[in-house]
Amino acid sequence: MASSARGGPPLLRQINSAHVLAALRGTGPLSLSDLAARTGLSRPTIGQVVEQLRASGLLAYVEPGQDGLVRSGRPARLVRFRSEAAYVVGIDVGRHKIHVTVADLAGQVVARRPRPVSAANSSQDLLAALRLAAKEALAEARIARTDVASVAVGTPGLVDLPSGAVTLAPGLPGWKIELARELRRSFHCPVQVENDCNLGALAERRRGLARDAHTVVFIHWGMRVGAGVLIGDNLHRGAANAAGEIGFLSLDSGTTAAPDDLGRGPFERMVGAEAIIAAGRAAAGRHGGLLADLLAAAPDRLDAEAVFAAAAKGDTAGAEAVRTIAARFARGLAPVLLVLDPDLVIIGAGVSRAGSVLLAAIQDSVTPLTLVPPRLELSRLGDEAVTLGAVELALADAERRLLPAPVLPAEVQ
Amino acid sequence: MASSARGGPPLLRQINSAHVLAALRGTGPLSLSDLAARTGLSRPTIGQVVEQLRASGLLAYVEPGQDGLVRSGRPARLVRFRSEAAYVVGIDVGRHKIHVTVADLAGQVVARRPRPVSAANSSQDLLAALRLAAKEALAEARIARTDVASVAVGTPGLVDLPSGAVTLAPGLPGWKIELARELRRSFHCPVQVENDCNLGALAERRRGLARDAHTVVFIHWGMRVGAGVLIGDNLHRGAANAAGEIGFLSLDSGTTAAPDDLGRGPFERMVGAEAIIAAGRAAAGRHGGLLADLLAAAPDRLDAEAVFAAAAKGDTAGAEAVRTIAARFARGLAPVLLVLDPDLVIIGAGVSRAGSVLLAAIQDSVTPLTLVPPRLELSRLGDEAVTLGAVELALADAERRLLPAPVLPAEVQ
Repeated sequence: MASSARGGPPLLRQINSAHVLAALRGTGPLSLSDLAARTGLSRPTIGQVVEQLRASGLLAYVEPGQDGLVRSGRPARLVRFRSEAAYVVGIDVGRHKIHVTVADLAGQVVARRPRPVSAANSSQDLLAALRLAAKEALAEARIARTDVASVAVGTPGLVDLPSGAVTLAPGLPGWKIELARELRRSFHCPVQVENDCNLGALAERRRGLARDAHTVVFIHWGMRVGAGVLIGDNLHRGAANAAGEIGFLSLDSGTTAAPDDLGRGPFERMVGAEAIIAAGRAAAGRHGGLLADLLAAAPDRLDAEAVFAAAAKGDTAGAEAVRTIAARFARGLAPVLLVLDPDLVIIGAGVSRAGSVLLAAIQDSVTPLTLVPPRLELSRLGDEAVTLGAVELALADAERRLLPAPVLPAEVQ
Repeated sequence: MASSARGGPPLLRQINSAHVLAALRGTGPLSLSDLAARTGLSRPTIGQVVEQLRASGLLAYVEPGQDGLVRSGRPARLVRFRSEAAYVVGIDVGRHKIHVTVADLAGQVVARRPRPVSAANSSQDLLAALRLAAKEALAEARIARTDVASVAVGTPGLVDLPSGAVTLAPGLPGWKIELARELRRSFHCPVQVENDCNLGALAERRRGLARDAHTVVFIHWGMRVGAGVLIGDNLHRGAANAAGEIGFLSLDSGTTAAPDDLGRGPFERMVGAEAIIAAGRAAAGRHGGLLADLLAAAPDRLDAEAVFAAAAKGDTAGAEAVRTIAARFARGLAPVLLVLDPDLVIIGAGVSRAGSVLLAAIQDSVTPLTLVPPRLELSRLGDEAVTLGAVELALADAERRLLPAPVLPAEVQ
């Protein structure tokens, strides 16, 4: 009912700008006539809108010959979206590694910086490593801190969303920190903090396998196990931002959700990377084969990937270990399926490299435990899922603030 | 972009009508001046809108003196929403009973008809009982079939939403039927079919304990166990409308989701009404007391309610049975909490009458199994939850079609 909400000229200008930007961001450079045709706006209106957007730095003319096309006659002047007008930073804080990714306003990655943090043992150490990795990534991309329009960070554990504080992170002992506030001292732009599994789900929606799925469960499966749930276009975070914490499922009667000394929940202990290695060792002890040879040669080199690789080659011990882990994982996956009935379950993080041998074993084990056989996939985003999700979250914020959005009047009378 | 979407006079009239109706439905009768003040519309516009809505049967003038208020001077003419302009029917199909509720456009219940169906053993028997119960309810309310604007039915099992067919209902053997199509032969209006637990959640949102909660899990707990999940204003139905089927949780290693001969899932067998009775019997055998006395006097009278009542009176056997059942229930509830992190869990159906003794025992058992202690409540809607949810679903449909809605243009240019 407020008069500012009425469709007066300022709103109209904003809406027209949004249409022009949308047309340009979806394609390459366009001439003003093409823009008019695509948006349905008149040629004079297009001219005005383009001038306004050029003045605000979001559009630029393409110099003739620079669009890569060859034309006869006088070339029409083309205009393009300046995706370099600002940048966003996506960060993934893990127990052993920090990933920093810088992307432009088109979401194009311009720098990636993984940084090991095995030495980190306090919030301050981790934060210092994070600041350093971010600094290096920006230097690599030759981008000034002032060109960063928005930052998003993925972290294990529970996040207090309004403040961006990490409130509980059993998987990262000591990591309890006013993270957004700390990072706002480094970046002079909005900083969002989000659970890393949620960001994985977001990355799958925008850049991965979940573009067309309505209800998506992204399961981070590595040392730790957790899930991000995306329903339609919304992350399902839960009342305390604790949705998807399936690493703390206590499936066996008598167990509880309490983390062990390493901060691992009961389901993480059952199926996490260390459990996969233990299952491989045990099976190698019984059957010999590839895994036994590997253990004899270099005991430390038996990792989860080696177990999956052995199974893929038909190794008996490898196959047995995969079946064991798949059967345990299915017991934790089944409740997720019965509660949510998702369109798609994507397994991400380290185990996403396990290959079809694991996927088939899980499908076999979980089908009898549920009413509707699920659609399961392995993520193809590898280690990048969380940072790419963070980039998407930061982009959404930057777009809200920098780009005119086609705001509809909230109330028309 | 279509010209029909623009804010021309027909759209404006529709929006104005919606404002007038909303003002009248939220309050009692109003004078035209009050309506003008509440909607911000001019007095002449109000006059036009009221005449249009009167012509379509949705508004009526209140005769002087009939509004229950005493005034001095010439009374202003008052106008009221005609909630009797149409009616909706909500139906709950259960194994032992069919409930039919008739309500007016204000959601006021005008007739209720429960009908036992213990003899029903085929889809056709159940359908015949359903038709009869609906007929009786309409007769009781003195409403013609042609005055019914919308019907909604709650059923156990999985529903194919577009067609309204029941595709899988292990809890109601033989119940696999094109239900919406069958009922459209009785009612000449839209018929929706929905999972009964989902309707319970909807009823709690509109008329029960969940008015202010964002993520709500309604757990139907009686002979059968299932959950309805409401996230914001949307039912979360899942990819195959199979979300919330927690009765089929197979918590113990080696069990599967397969139903038994009675169609019960493994979690239903662990905690359903019959399991509560069995736990009461077993505890009475060990400890004697109230339940043993009851069993000695009339073995058939030991039902779940008697077990809870004994526990509430401090009976040792009753208390032990409640602890046993609560501990089992907590094992199935914990995954729901870890996956969804709901604001509120409401226990409905028969067990909703258990009282605080059960609720406290569940809270004790489930807290160690989750990261965030949940908010648990017992439904106060009793047997009416599903029919009232069906009424709400039917009302939403009737409103969409009968009442003008303040439609905003889908796209403004």
